[in-house]
Amino acid sequence: MRVVDLIEKKKKGLAHTTEEINFLVDSLMNGTAEDYQISAWLMAVYFQGMTGKETADFTAAIINSGEKIDLSPIGSHIADKHSTGGVGDKITIILIPLLAACGVPVAKLSGKGLGHTGGTIDKLESIPNFRTELEIDELIDKVKKIGVAIGSQTKKLTPADGKLYALRDVTATVDSMPLIASSVVSKKIASGADFVVLDVKYGSGAFIKTPQDALKLSELMVNTAQNLGRKFNAVISSMEQPLGRMVGNSLEVIESIEFLKGNCTPDIKELTYAIAVLTLLHLKIAKNEEEAVEKIDNVLKSGAALEKFRELIISQGGDDSVVDDYSKFKQPACRFELKTDSCGYVENIDAYKIAYACKLLGAGREKKSDSVDFSAGIELKKIYGEKVEPGDVIAVLYSDSEEKIKNALDGVKEAFVFGDERPAHRAMVYKII
Amino acid sequence: MRVVDLIEKKKKGLAHTTEEINFLVDSLMNGTAEDYQISAWLMAVYFQGMTGKETADFTAAIINSGEKIDLSPIGSHIADKHSTGGVGDKITIILIPLLAACGVPVAKLSGKGLGHTGGTIDKLESIPNFRTELEIDELIDKVKKIGVAIGSQTKKLTPADGKLYALRDVTATVDSMPLIASSVVSKKIASGADFVVLDVKYGSGAFIKTPQDALKLSELMVNTAQNLGRKFNAVISSMEQPLGRMVGNSLEVIESIEFLKGNCTPDIKELTYAIAVLTLLHLKIAKNEEEAVEKIDNVLKSGAALEKFRELIISQGGDDSVVDDYSKFKQPACRFELKTDSCGYVENIDAYKIAYACKLLGAGREKKSDSVDFSAGIELKKIYGEKVEPGDVIAVLYSDSEEKIKNALDGVKEAFVFGDERPAHRAMVYKII
Repeated sequence: MRVVDLIEKKKKGLAHTTEEINFLVDSLMNGTAEDYQISAWLMAVYFQGMTGKETADFTAAIINSGEKIDLSPIGSHIADKHSTGGVGDKITIILIPLLAACGVPVAKLSGKGLGHTGGTIDKLESIPNFRTELEIDELIDKVKKIGVAIGSQTKKLTPADGKLYALRDVTATVDSMPLIASSVVSKKIASGADFVVLDVKYGSGAFIKTPQDALKLSELMVNTAQNLGRKFNAVISSMEQPLGRMVGNSLEVIESIEFLKGNCTPDIKELTYAIAVLTLLHLKIAKNEEEAVEKIDNVLKSGAALEKFRELIISQGGDDSVVDDYSKFKQPACRFELKTDSCGYVENIDAYKIAYACKLLGAGREKKSDSVDFSAGIELKKIYGEKVEPGDVIAVLYSDSEEKIKNALDGVKEAFVFGDERPAHRAMVYKII
Repeated sequence: MRVVDLIEKKKKGLAHTTEEINFLVDSLMNGTAEDYQISAWLMAVYFQGMTGKETADFTAAIINSGEKIDLSPIGSHIADKHSTGGVGDKITIILIPLLAACGVPVAKLSGKGLGHTGGTIDKLESIPNFRTELEIDELIDKVKKIGVAIGSQTKKLTPADGKLYALRDVTATVDSMPLIASSVVSKKIASGADFVVLDVKYGSGAFIKTPQDALKLSELMVNTAQNLGRKFNAVISSMEQPLGRMVGNSLEVIESIEFLKGNCTPDIKELTYAIAVLTLLHLKIAKNEEEAVEKIDNVLKSGAALEKFRELIISQGGDDSVVDDYSKFKQPACRFELKTDSCGYVENIDAYKIAYACKLLGAGREKKSDSVDFSAGIELKKIYGEKVEPGDVIAVLYSDSEEKIKNALDGVKEAFVFGDERPAHRAMVYKII
């Protein structure tokens, strides 16, 4: 078998056999395939796609390229979730103590963010001394002890995906459905959870632009997992506008704590509940939707979910006083209140423009080696559907320099669209599969 | 400008600007574009194509990546030709002394063959001591002295094409029309000739399978040259069956000498005359087709073309006694006469199967570093339209080992198709543009 012949085959639109897929991934890992061959193959996959069977084979080969986490010491009902990425997406931070408080063991691996704002790991690391570099044993021990732990992704899992992603990133082959699906599903399966909810986002602030494409990707991921004997669900939701009011690292942790304290925006609530309900139903912790919602309501009202978050912070070495005193987070050197001279209602806030502005403020990174400013970000004082009058502050920008705020300001202004009438309620969840 | 953005643009099917094409080729040459980015871009070009303007820009950028030969010291009516490659294709060897004898200065650069049989340079090097590694000055001097010279391609011309071809070869991106066209046209323009005839072949023994595709490629090459201010013509001809009776290196030189002595098969004659007539007309050495044919007939009948070939051999250090005594070529250790038990007429000889058998006999090379067996090859004793009776020898196989002959034999047998009736005359030339 020769790599060049497999590129030719894919170029012609033919499907690879299991052996061919394994040969490709093996050749990538042992260096007998050159990067320039893999990238040509990736581009051919972009154009010709892969069948469901090919995608499952490819996913299995990526899983087999590294270690697999065995979560059986914890039990057999372990939940995990994955987001395809959005702006102001703090759902994981809220969800993991919430589910743990409901009695679902959560062992979660997350990535650092490449892009306009940080990833979940960056956000949590904005809590002073919060440690996410956990060995697998440590992660399992912590889940056993308090029912929840979160670690940063280890290179020992799916190393083939790491190599493939690095190539895709610089060869314009990121946006291929079967490549995205195999990357996500392989990581989740290798991470060992029994049940996974995929949070698939579409819109201006997501890499998928339409609900139709989000549905296609969701079906592909759910089917791929099924082909490999795993049950995944997907919640497809809008990322046209940022999620909640806060975008940035410590800002999003603060908003998560506020949620656990009972103060929340409807969009975050809708999405969090959707994912939590699915999980409780699947793991048979609730008999029906009503019971699931009740359980979630209870752990929020009783403060059990907030307490679980405090336990999580302590368990991972962090300073839990942040829960009561937000000034314990690193404070931004500069802040700027953006006022409007418009009158009416917020009709739209472009998620991409807000994300881009956050990057200019210092909240994100472009290269893996870049550092992230935990305190940088944007607080949306007015969100979708809210009334504005001339002179109202619509957003507050935080950064470590006035210069960065100056650079980001126009983008934030442009992100806001006002209308004369109060817009209709918008549903976050497009579909659950 | 970033290479990854240009890959994305081509992936989406958008056309590059001149600046973008120049940036890509510059990045390839100065190493700022990685090979894995170039190969992804090449695959995107395979799927999305390039416009005529892009192809011309790309061709110009490849020309500008290296030196250009200035043939003006010789004069202003220099002819060149290029074949897209075929089986038993010895047209160049016949044509260059023929045109030189007609008074057309010929300064030709040729490649070594990668594939089933050798290239023109390999064939000529089967003449003992024939030297093809000429410096440009030397090439020009020889043309000035005797009107003809042939050298092997230098790396100083179109180095970008060398890099691109090396990548295309191992990433299944060879068969892209704009990439083929830019590669051929850039080399020919950088080689300095005023007028170039492209010999574009289709069929079993060519990389282009249909006359329609050959026409498309021919038009693209002629138009690309025209966009860059050069006049190219293309002769589109069949390569379903091998050209002439001989396939192999010294075997093809022998058949070329026989042609110059007046003994030729109709297919070689048709193609040689077509290219030679085009050249004589374009360079105004003949007023019309009849006069051109007469001139060609004359230099063949008078022996002037054969004498010119002898001069060429001597001029490049070769042993010209091969012209009179074919035993001066390296002799094969083994020969095998393949007989048939069929009765009827030769209806087809599959060019690809003959070429593949020749490779097994040792006539070709797979890697640039492989050596070529000059004496290996196949002599077709019966060709298209000829009568066969049981017991007739239809082919003779030459090699340096009985083992290789054994391996090649079945393929040669399978290449022959016989019919009961004499097949109609087949025209070689499909179209001239």
